[in-house]
Amino acid sequence: MFNPQLNSKGNLNHLLSIEGLSKEKIIQIFDTAESFLKIGERDVKKVPILRGKTVCNVFFENSTRTRTTFEIAAKRLSADVINLNVATSSQSKGETILDTINNLIAMNADIFVVRHSSSGAAHFIASHVKPNIHIINAGDGNHSHPTQGLLDAFTIRKYKTNFNKLKVAIVGDILHSRVARSNIHALNILGVPEIRVIAPKTLLPYEIEKLGVHVFHDIDKGLKDADVIMMLRIQNERMDGVMLPSQEEYFKTYGLNQTRLDLAKKDAIVMHPGPMNRGVEIDSAVADSDQSVILPQVTFGIAVRMAVMAILAGQHS
Amino acid sequence: MFNPQLNSKGNLNHLLSIEGLSKEKIIQIFDTAESFLKIGERDVKKVPILRGKTVCNVFFENSTRTRTTFEIAAKRLSADVINLNVATSSQSKGETILDTINNLIAMNADIFVVRHSSSGAAHFIASHVKPNIHIINAGDGNHSHPTQGLLDAFTIRKYKTNFNKLKVAIVGDILHSRVARSNIHALNILGVPEIRVIAPKTLLPYEIEKLGVHVFHDIDKGLKDADVIMMLRIQNERMDGVMLPSQEEYFKTYGLNQTRLDLAKKDAIVMHPGPMNRGVEIDSAVADSDQSVILPQVTFGIAVRMAVMAILAGQHS
Amino acid sequence: MFNPQLNSKGNLNHLLSIEGLSKEKIIQIFDTAESFLKIGERDVKKVPILRGKTVCNVFFENSTRTRTTFEIAAKRLSADVINLNVATSSQSKGETILDTINNLIAMNADIFVVRHSSSGAAHFIASHVKPNIHIINAGDGNHSHPTQGLLDAFTIRKYKTNFNKLKVAIVGDILHSRVARSNIHALNILGVPEIRVIAPKTLLPYEIEKLGVHVFHDIDKGLKDADVIMMLRIQNERMDGVMLPSQEEYFKTYGLNQTRLDLAKKDAIVMHPGPMNRGVEIDSAVADSDQSVILPQVTFGIAVRMAVMAILAGQHS
Repeated sequence: MFNPQLNSKGNLNHLLSIEGLSKEKIIQIFDTAESFLKIGERDVKKVPILRGKTVCNVFFENSTRTRTTFEIAAKRLSADVINLNVATSSQSKGETILDTINNLIAMNADIFVVRHSSSGAAHFIASHVKPNIHIINAGDGNHSHPTQGLLDAFTIRKYKTNFNKLKVAIVGDILHSRVARSNIHALNILGVPEIRVIAPKTLLPYEIEKLGVHVFHDIDKGLKDADVIMMLRIQNERMDGVMLPSQEEYFKTYGLNQTRLDLAKKDAIVMHPGPMNRGVEIDSAVADSDQSVILPQVTFGIAVRMAVMAILAGQHS
Repeated sequence: MFNPQLNSKGNLNHLLSIEGLSKEKIIQIFDTAESFLKIGERDVKKVPILRGKTVCNVFFENSTRTRTTFEIAAKRLSADVINLNVATSSQSKGETILDTINNLIAMNADIFVVRHSSSGAAHFIASHVKPNIHIINAGDGNHSHPTQGLLDAFTIRKYKTNFNKLKVAIVGDILHSRVARSNIHALNILGVPEIRVIAPKTLLPYEIEKLGVHVFHDIDKGLKDADVIMMLRIQNERMDGVMLPSQEEYFKTYGLNQTRLDLAKKDAIVMHPGPMNRGVEIDSAVADSDQSVILPQVTFGIAVRMAVMAILAGQHS
Repeated sequence: MFNPQLNSKGNLNHLLSIEGLSKEKIIQIFDTAESFLKIGERDVKKVPILRGKTVCNVFFENSTRTRTTFEIAAKRLSADVINLNVATSSQSKGETILDTINNLIAMNADIFVVRHSSSGAAHFIASHVKPNIHIINAGDGNHSHPTQGLLDAFTIRKYKTNFNKLKVAIVGDILHSRVARSNIHALNILGVPEIRVIAPKTLLPYEIEKLGVHVFHDIDKGLKDADVIMMLRIQNERMDGVMLPSQEEYFKTYGLNQTRLDLAKKDAIVMHPGPMNRGVEIDSAVADSDQSVILPQVTFGIAVRMAVMAILAGQHS
């Protein structure tokens, strides 16, 4: 099968989605990220791997947090970084996405970090650029958010020894979550035997079971003996046409509090992609508890994004 | 005659407009740009020419694309870059333009890239700053956009051997186009014998013939045997009070399609300053054809802007 | 008394307010700034003191000018700079301030420059971060703006030999001015014997005399024999519920013109934190006169901010 993420030699050329990545490729990214983790602890948090290269953050959809993680990662690799918030830019002057990207390529940009509200936008761009240009999908519609999927799996690897024995529960708005989708694919590839999704019917996509997950509508049953609990953000901004209970009601039915956390394994870890709605999907005490690895996720996210950029640019093997 | 762009030694101190530049100065910029073009193809696309200097992009009028080209050019020269979108800044707190600029000079900024909606803004600033401060006009009202004029002429030099034998046709909204004005001046200085402007009467400035151009209202006649076709963008945002046909009507009357392109010389090149309105002033097939040099214009634009900054800062001769 | 700005060894760990700084600490900052002043005059205006460190400008309240001064200062120290305008960011997605900051700390940011519309915001953040993270207050509500207070006192030191003999007059909207508050504290610590505040009753805070200042409602009396005149900006954006005269009326009653300036000492200096409202609080001729040190203040501001960052990061003693 043609894999749009690989070049003719089988090397990673773009990161568009978790699907299509082999277990080996993911492990390579993790091992590279591991080496970059140490740089974050150094006094001089910089390596010259991308010196003289230009990374463009092209955000057709605003996301300060995600943009910041890529900006920091690129600067730690010594790249020059250009931030383009295209929502407020020439797109509104009637230019096509491809013309925008091709213009930046003509300026000799090397890596594009693309965020777009439409599923498939990054794939579309990747299928139209020259071989030495690299596209990283930083979130496209409800479809995919591969660096989040990778950093979440990397986080699990840091705290759990063996993917092959884990029960992972993903809780919340699966329907609108590109994070959930990317996580399910990553965990499947890495061999997690039991992936559970916990959500009301209105927040589950059609035929989600086909992805090999177990569906729970009752959070108490779904959390039973879990090793990893991944909470999802309630994204009010994506809720077009979905009937939702009030935030209080949601917290009562699907929010993670200590009583529920106690249903999972004693050493279960709690994850969240951020930004958190404390008191809506997660109780403050749980978010700040010893079992929470929410801030380490952020630290790992920088290292994973550095690894992806270094590997795409062929500067790391 | 006093030339506000030159210092007392006759060296280029500001770039405010094409008028007032000698042919020799333009050729010097081109030759310097030529050497910078090679940097864009290198693995490490950086030279230390402006290391430790500060370039301020002061945009009183928003333009992400132009700002990006200057930002990339300055970073390739290793300058520190500060972006100021003054529309949303202290200007709105009642500060004068000169106070804004003088504050930045007091912070020891070296080069100012200024975009303003009023003609003459860059000249005004340049006439009030100290000798070692350099102003680059990045577009002032309908008046001037000198780096665009230079990069367009540089593009022609890359594809055509001799300015002295060329027929150049400029098509579209001449009235509101600082690009057209700057191009006409550059081509005149460089010795182009035949400059044609092709536009409806409503989009032509009063007494345009005084600039030494031939006026055509019929595009088919105007394109006949042209060596270079410069399409202009229809800028709906600048159309206050001008009666315009619909976009379809405009495309039918003045849009560049293949049939019209065939009226020009066989090896004619097609240029556009971007962003393009495909299907309005230019047919998509023509924009993407072998005769189009629209993307090379962008590449050359980085090199030309690097050259201008390096020469102004006296770091290149 | 516990001083939240100092670490356990008594070194400066945060800069939150002028209160709590010893005279020795302030003099240390001044002496360091003095050495950085020379860097601004060099050809390469950069030192590697913060190379590989990340400075985050986290502005919960927009201020392009203050952000720019910190950005330039950090880049002159070779830091990587991340600008976050949180007003438009995940704050609006319901995240708490602390979650925003903790996320950035998890990305291994080192220094946070924080601007917030609420008094005490920087203190609150500083009380919740790890010991090796440094917070600089860049203005919190009506409370404090310590780097402005420092740069203003540094400016006075550059022009006047001895703080112990000075009469300093602060004129204008004391009520809403964090600058005035920070200046009064700095001048007190540095031993200025006579600090005067000149304002209408409606623009004076309750019990201002307790800060050891002399209150004048008549500007002519207040300026008599002053060595230093600090004009404050009329901030229309902060005037909720305060009855104000028209700008013309204000200028007539409290604006600084040459006639009034002549009431002060012959060698009195005129200061303003910017941005100026010419013709409202200060006459243009006075702002541009030989006695004005308004632009030098800006230059000194960069050096003082460099000094604060270098000292906080422990890279300068």
